[in-house]
Amino acid sequence: MNVFYRIQPNNSEMKILLIVCDGMGDRPCGELGGKTPLEAAYKPNLDRMASEGMCGLVDTIAVGVRPGSDTSHLSLFGYDPREYYTGRGPFEAAGVGMELREGDVAFRVNFGTVDGDLVVTDRRAGRIDDVTELSRAVDGIEIDGIRFTVKAGTGYRAGLVLRGEGVSHMVSDGDSHESGSRVIEVKPLDGTPEAGKTAEAMNKYLIKAHGILGEHQVNRKRIAGGKPPANFILARGAGRMPHIPPMKERYGLKAACVAGAGLYRGVAKAVGMDVYTPEGATGKPNTDVKAKVSKAIELLNSGYDYAFIHVKATDVYGHDGDAKGKMKFIEKVDEALAPVLTLRDTVVAVTADHSTPCSTKNHSGDPVPLLIWSPDLRTDDVKEFGERPCGKGILHRIRGLDLMNELLNLAGRGSIYGA
Amino acid sequence: MNVFYRIQPNNSEMKILLIVCDGMGDRPCGELGGKTPLEAAYKPNLDRMASEGMCGLVDTIAVGVRPGSDTSHLSLFGYDPREYYTGRGPFEAAGVGMELREGDVAFRVNFGTVDGDLVVTDRRAGRIDDVTELSRAVDGIEIDGIRFTVKAGTGYRAGLVLRGEGVSHMVSDGDSHESGSRVIEVKPLDGTPEAGKTAEAMNKYLIKAHGILGEHQVNRKRIAGGKPPANFILARGAGRMPHIPPMKERYGLKAACVAGAGLYRGVAKAVGMDVYTPEGATGKPNTDVKAKVSKAIELLNSGYDYAFIHVKATDVYGHDGDAKGKMKFIEKVDEALAPVLTLRDTVVAVTADHSTPCSTKNHSGDPVPLLIWSPDLRTDDVKEFGERPCGKGILHRIRGLDLMNELLNLAGRGSIYGA
Repeated sequence: MNVFYRIQPNNSEMKILLIVCDGMGDRPCGELGGKTPLEAAYKPNLDRMASEGMCGLVDTIAVGVRPGSDTSHLSLFGYDPREYYTGRGPFEAAGVGMELREGDVAFRVNFGTVDGDLVVTDRRAGRIDDVTELSRAVDGIEIDGIRFTVKAGTGYRAGLVLRGEGVSHMVSDGDSHESGSRVIEVKPLDGTPEAGKTAEAMNKYLIKAHGILGEHQVNRKRIAGGKPPANFILARGAGRMPHIPPMKERYGLKAACVAGAGLYRGVAKAVGMDVYTPEGATGKPNTDVKAKVSKAIELLNSGYDYAFIHVKATDVYGHDGDAKGKMKFIEKVDEALAPVLTLRDTVVAVTADHSTPCSTKNHSGDPVPLLIWSPDLRTDDVKEFGERPCGKGILHRIRGLDLMNELLNLAGRGSIYGA
Repeated sequence: MNVFYRIQPNNSEMKILLIVCDGMGDRPCGELGGKTPLEAAYKPNLDRMASEGMCGLVDTIAVGVRPGSDTSHLSLFGYDPREYYTGRGPFEAAGVGMELREGDVAFRVNFGTVDGDLVVTDRRAGRIDDVTELSRAVDGIEIDGIRFTVKAGTGYRAGLVLRGEGVSHMVSDGDSHESGSRVIEVKPLDGTPEAGKTAEAMNKYLIKAHGILGEHQVNRKRIAGGKPPANFILARGAGRMPHIPPMKERYGLKAACVAGAGLYRGVAKAVGMDVYTPEGATGKPNTDVKAKVSKAIELLNSGYDYAFIHVKATDVYGHDGDAKGKMKFIEKVDEALAPVLTLRDTVVAVTADHSTPCSTKNHSGDPVPLLIWSPDLRTDDVKEFGERPCGKGILHRIRGLDLMNELLNLAGRGSIYGA
């Protein structure tokens, strides 16, 4: 729990800009001469900010713990995931623009393909590029007092929200996470009547939706065209929408998010940020980082106190084990950050939500580098932004949950704990 | 609480070797030219691992807190002592091979000598070298529905386990911890009926056992031979055996302990390790460290995922205030560690459970040095294993409870918190 926050009015004019490069942290890579992609990258802007600012390492969850992207972002925004997180579903659903209320249960879902025996033959239904119409066909159904709402995301993805008296998130996935096996029944994960009821209604809903989707003209056309029909909802990551005090209420910050990828938009929205996705911000390696940076600066210049930029592709390269690609993408980010150096009266932080080492191709529990650049702070000797240089910085090794307090502090916006 | 663990299958082939040199941490010693015993020691193997790996400091409990050997080991294994520890008794009892069930209450006991007025004349009964027969004589007695089980340990030591409905660990020692004073009555430490009942039964048992021991032929012979009889059970460190999820269940690790001394075997057993004591492993300065190292390597090569080596004598030298002896023993350990450098696909950690400075001759709250040596990690500039060199390492300053997560992370065996 992060008990030190108090809502208080304050008169600081200092703004906060947080830039998170997803999965940027790494380990030494042989193909980069024993440097990490960040250490190896040519990144004059980041290095200048590191030189003029202060550096450190961040365990976004805790030492050695491998963070998810959802829990780590909650932490970086100062919200303890042990208090606010029960599953990814609500954040994905918020990310596709669904309005969740406290107590709603949500899943992230794929529209997939099953055969006549309910064996999954394609978890992404041939990577169907839009499920808006199909989502509408299975939206708004009510079973046993639970209302099922569906909204399409990008491609084959969608959000599924369950609302009703006594709905529970303590239910298993309905997704075996692999092709070739039968869809699995959703099961209660605890002995409560709520979990039992939710699992039962969910199974009824999935079968009912399967019937509707099988008959849907979109799928008839797909079959006619030799494409796999998107005829089953594969649901996972059930979570209950908690009561999350918005950033405005908690920190007095009018906050905005600039992100391309759904999950990050969802987490940002859940903590009360206004969410922007400028044209060209794709959440992919081809993303327009410059467009994101100028959008964030524009927002800070037009009434927002806090802006969060999310850049996804560093993580993608890590998952692919592509150290050179990751390095080059970091160079692209660095170039796009040039306008940030013109900001005044702004506390800028650059960090990652977790490490995704090219050697392991998955999230690791290695701490992430952090730089904070602001006109009024204690500089250190670090001249270069990187995992090992940051390990020598004056911020030492902090937790993700500490970052928000540090940024509020440097922006002159923190409240005193005590008197 | 360490809430981030999830049981999960994983496919990592990386193994973990943890080497704990008890009480190794120290402060600068005048007789060593202002170096600590570890800093002053010639230790090419440890220095090489420090150079190739990463270093830091560990507060095994918390900053400045003086750790016990039991609580610190629980922490190093990732089990929060605030959750699992109520007293040393259960771990000592497990260490002498007693089978404890959840809810059992255990004491560590000395067989001592009292005179006719129950005044303790020798707390160790003339350092009697074996109490097996005497333990049997007072084993299995039942009083007020509580069954008292006794098993001999080494020398004058034994474990005492109380089992029964409503048995409580909230009772005081029956040991004044000094000769020349009367044995003290066991008293309840809280107002519960359970504590009252347990204290009463315990006092009845101790008097009954005193009667049996006084008449026992072993003691008749000792008296005839001019030796003090082992005629009273001095009990201390009451603790309740908690439910401890075994390491296999918690981390998916098949784990082994290689230790000579009882307490460490007991803590290891309590967390589900298989316990091995190779010949020559005495838990004393004459111990065969090489035998321990080769046993651990053999275990890692034959199906174990995790091995823990405990080396006791560093602590013994600290308690004796013998800085040169401690330094030389560390050199002996270093020499024995040579085969560790041949390990592949293994995360190796070397640390201590606490500091035992030669200046204070007792456990101190100074953090302990840590090195982690593994093929895939972020190296730092530390070239030497020692308290102050490790203070400059990239691991910074972590808690004992963090170590297990860090080792799981580097071994690719951690689970993701979130998604």
